[in-house]
This record gives sequence, C-alpha cells and structure tokens, in this order.
Amino acid sequence: MRTIDWVDGAVEIIDQTALPGELRVLRLHTVGELIAAIQSLAVRGAPALGVAGAFGVALAARVHADDPAALGVAIRKIEEARPTAVNLARGARRAAARLPLGPEAVLSEAYAIRDEEIAASKAMAFRGADLITELCGARPRLLTHCNTGGLAAVTVGTALGVVGELHRRERLAGVIASETRPLLQGARLTSWELTRWGIEHRVAVDSAGPFLMARGEVDAVILGADRICANGDVINKVGSYSHALGAHRAGIPFVVVAPESTVDVDTPSGAHVEIEDRGAAEVTAWSDAVNPAFDITPHDLVTAIVTDRRVIRVDQGERP
Amino acid sequence: MRTIDWVDGAVEIIDQTALPGELRVLRLHTVGELIAAIQSLAVRGAPALGVAGAFGVALAARVHADDPAALGVAIRKIEEARPTAVNLARGARRAAARLPLGPEAVLSEAYAIRDEEIAASKAMAFRGADLITELCGARPRLLTHCNTGGLAAVTVGTALGVVGELHRRERLAGVIASETRPLLQGARLTSWELTRWGIEHRVAVDSAGPFLMARGEVDAVILGADRICANGDVINKVGSYSHALGAHRAGIPFVVVAPESTVDVDTPSGAHVEIEDRGAAEVTAWSDAVNPAFDITPHDLVTAIVTDRRVIRVDQGERP
Repeated sequence: MRTIDWVDGAVEIIDQTALPGELRVLRLHTVGELIAAIQSLAVRGAPALGVAGAFGVALAARVHADDPAALGVAIRKIEEARPTAVNLARGARRAAARLPLGPEAVLSEAYAIRDEEIAASKAMAFRGADLITELCGARPRLLTHCNTGGLAAVTVGTALGVVGELHRRERLAGVIASETRPLLQGARLTSWELTRWGIEHRVAVDSAGPFLMARGEVDAVILGADRICANGDVINKVGSYSHALGAHRAGIPFVVVAPESTVDVDTPSGAHVEIEDRGAAEVTAWSDAVNPAFDITPHDLVTAIVTDRRVIRVDQGERP
Repeated sequence: MRTIDWVDGAVEIIDQTALPGELRVLRLHTVGELIAAIQSLAVRGAPALGVAGAFGVALAARVHADDPAALGVAIRKIEEARPTAVNLARGARRAAARLPLGPEAVLSEAYAIRDEEIAASKAMAFRGADLITELCGARPRLLTHCNTGGLAAVTVGTALGVVGELHRRERLAGVIASETRPLLQGARLTSWELTRWGIEHRVAVDSAGPFLMARGEVDAVILGADRICANGDVINKVGSYSHALGAHRAGIPFVVVAPESTVDVDTPSGAHVEIEDRGAAEVTAWSDAVNPAFDITPHDLVTAIVTDRRVIRVDQGERP
C-alpha cells in the first residue's frame, strides 16, 4: 500500500486525518483539492510532500496546458502550501522544470520522484539499522517522535523504517512512540503502523520523553526531519528539540533519518527557516495559543544524520 | 471561592474534571467519595491535597468514632490515595495526631491546615513576585506548566499566584500556559483561572516550551512542586524537567514556588520518590502507554525555590 500515488489521472492518498479510526483513500482531481489535503495534513511527512508537490504540478500541467499564467499561479500555490519542509517546493520545482516537454514529461518526473523516495526509504532502513546497532548494541530501546513511517513517505518511511528493519533483524528491545501534540501523529499514525507491522510499543505524552531517558528507559532517540541545514541543524516536528535536550543530558544518541531530498545546503542554519504556526484551533478550544508546528534542533545536539546515501556523523564534526 | 472547604459536615470541592466547561461543586460525605475524588483528580494540586487529606481524616473520625480498627484503615487509605505529593499523607497524619482529643479537635487541625495554606499562598505570591522582578526586570514573559492557581491550593495558588501578583503590580508582559498532557490542567484549569483574573495568555503544547525559550519568547519558567527533596531536586507534573532543560539551555531562570508543606527534607533526592504511573487510558485509546504523572528536575537545573517563608537560591548552593 502506498501513501500517495497517481492512479487513473488523479492523485490518490491515504487520508491521514481519518486514521487510526478509518483507512480511507482520497482521490484528488484538482490542484485545489491537493493543496487542501496538504494544508489539513491529510497528506504529510517531508518525503510524501515532495511526491505530492510533483504530482500536484502534473495535475496543474494537464488542467492549465493552454494557460501559462494560470499554470504559474498554480505551481506557486503548491510550492507555498506549507513553508517548512523543503521537499514540497523542491518536488514541485523539479516536476515544473519538465513543463517545456509537455504534461507527460512532468508526470514522468513525478513518477521518478515517487520511485526515488521508495528506494531511499529502503536504503535508509538498512543503513540506519546498521548505525543503531553500532551505537547501541544488539537490543536497543528506541524513542521516536511524530510519524516517520510509510505514511510520511510512499512506503517504509524514514526513522520508522529503521525501527521496522531492526525488528526484522530481531535487534530491537522496545519502542516508545511520542504522541506528538497537537495532532497526535505519534499516537494515531505511528502506533497504527507499528501495530500493522507487529511491533509492540508504548505511547507516551511528549513531555515524558526526556524523563524516560533520564530514568534509563531509552537507549536512543530516532526521528525524521523536515529540513536539514548546511550546518547540521535539524528542522522537525515540534518536540524534537526537547527530546534532543533529554538525549544530550542522558548521554544517549540522537539520530535523524531523512532522504537526501530533505538535505538543504542552501539553508545555512535553522535560524533561516520559516517555522509554520498552525494557529490556536489545533491546540485548544478555550483560549488563544501559540502553535509552532516545528522546532530547530541545533547541530551540537545531533549525533548522526542517516540519509539514503551516507551517514553524517555530526557529533564528529561532519556536516551535510 | 475556595477550591476545597468543610461545609455543614461534608467536604466541598470544585470538580476540576468538569472545568472549564462547567463550574460544579461536589459534596463528599464519605472517605470513599473523597478518595475517589482525589484519584480522579477532581481535587488535585499539592496544597489542596494536604487540606483534602486532613478533611478526610476529619470525615473518618466522625464515621468511625467507635471503631479504631476501621478508622486506622481509612486513614491509611487516605494517605495512600496518591503516592507522589508529600502533602496528602502529611496533612492526613497531622490531623490524625489529634484523634485522642476527639473528632472536633481533628476538624480544628484540618481548618488550621486550610488556613495555613491560604496564608502561605499570599506570602508566596508577594515573595515570588519580588524575586521574578529581581531576576527578570520589570516586564517579564513567563511560561508556566500544569495548574498552580487557586484550584491547586485553597485560594490564590503557588506559581500562578505569583503570576497574578505580578499582573496586579503591572509587572508582567505575557504568560504562556503549557497545556499539560494528558489531562490538560494547563489548557483547562490555568487558562480558566487566568481568564477569570483578566490576564491575557497563550496556551502551547508542552513540547513547544523549550523551543519558545530558545526563540527568545520566554524570560523565566515558573511552576509548582509536588515534593521538594533535601538536595533541592524538585518533583512536579511530568513535563517540568523538559522545561528545566529548555530554560537551562536558554539561560533563563527556572523558579519553583511551593509552600513549606511541600518541602520534604526526609526525602534525600528525587531518586527516592515513587513516581505515580496513571495508566494508558489517560493517554491513548489505541495502544499501550507509559504514563508517569510526574518527573524529577535535578537541583542543578533549578534557579530558586520560593516558599511562604524563604527564597532558596539553589543556583547559589542553598538547599532546603
């Protein structure tokens, strides 16, 4: 099952707002529907957003084949649907670069991005599992945050793909899934995927993570990224920075798993990234709120970044 | 309005599970009803639990006046209704020490504990406001966690009483209330109290706290305690430790406000405190969970502890 794909002239996605209650597939026929799905987080996760951006341009190229101005507007709207993950705009621009060759060439490029993310997930799973075993020994207990499984990519995933691979190798002693407020991607999506994969796990409120580390119940933190900066700063779901502080204090590894498509050497550091604020309504019905959807983990708190092509030992001075 | 009081032979409490939707008063006529209210968190907060423990023994002394064995069992059940906050057992034992003088003497002692907590709140509010102004200047922006207002005490509260006093002095530039998963004491109770007091505020998910500090939006963290150990370690609602790590990294003060009744010099350090696990159902309906209700903030992350009698500058080597 793929989180996102092109089927009979439309984009099909698993509606992540309906899980775990219902496994519902949405067919998106227009750019407007696709953007709404991106903004409501029906489709989310940096790798999946890259594919969504590319398929979105493929949709636009068909609808606006004879109207370059409208096409230009549609592409910009796709790129800007969400600001933080680099993959969305990057996927859209890569597909858009094929527009002179016609709509089918755009779609081919989108397929290529989809297939590259599938291949990247598999490569990260193997490389990440090797690294975790090297860092933590044979039977680590891992804490992960947000959702980085197949639902965040096309299949397999990033950090959760590593968890799955360790499970297959029988090299995993436990998983804590941080619930990930406000939208509970950990409690809803990660828990759903781990259950499907047959991996026992426990959910914890986000703020319990650092305490569970201090109490000796976690051997490493492993999570994804929405953007990796040139200096090794990591932009990821809000709460990642807290876990990084907890891991640093507990002296355990903090490992980031993301495809090369999430590495952005054009962004010098975390200070240069726009952090999306998603508004009060996601957090509380009773008052005003501040709701940064992401945070910045400074590179000095990062042990390693695993991509589909390499392991960057940030703790040893390596940089993307 | 008092959070807890003795009215016409029964204990009356504001039902904190119903807020902010409904302001409902519960009358508790039996020890069993009182224990159920404590365990469901209808009444909660270390100072309020001390008063609840004492009034519980007053109830027991009336019901079991002629049955010392049943009375002993009831007192033990009250003491052990929740394990982490020192106030509950301490309040119960202090009232129980008057049993030889009869039920009215027990009730008098419970009244005394209630009145001492009211007085302690006022003293903490003044002393804490002075300290925050000294540490942060004239117009600080504060982050608080869980609920430490009148609802956690009898009136006024601990850390939130300081926030209220700074507001009255026009020495407050902003408040962020950390929502406090899983039971949302921040989003439900603190926000409700701040609104009643006319204090503008924003709620944030717990894991956003350290990031908001890193981004320069918080000048100090101020929160309460369920137990303060002899070495200065602070036991408080889960999430406090994360905020302490964030404050330490951001170089801002981390201030704990609690009455002397929460200081427990018989507990050498946080490692000696039983941390209540409240079970999976509070966290998620979809999987297993680990749910520590409290955490331990090591004393090296604590700037100061404000009680009704003193300021303990933990950062300068002072200890309770």
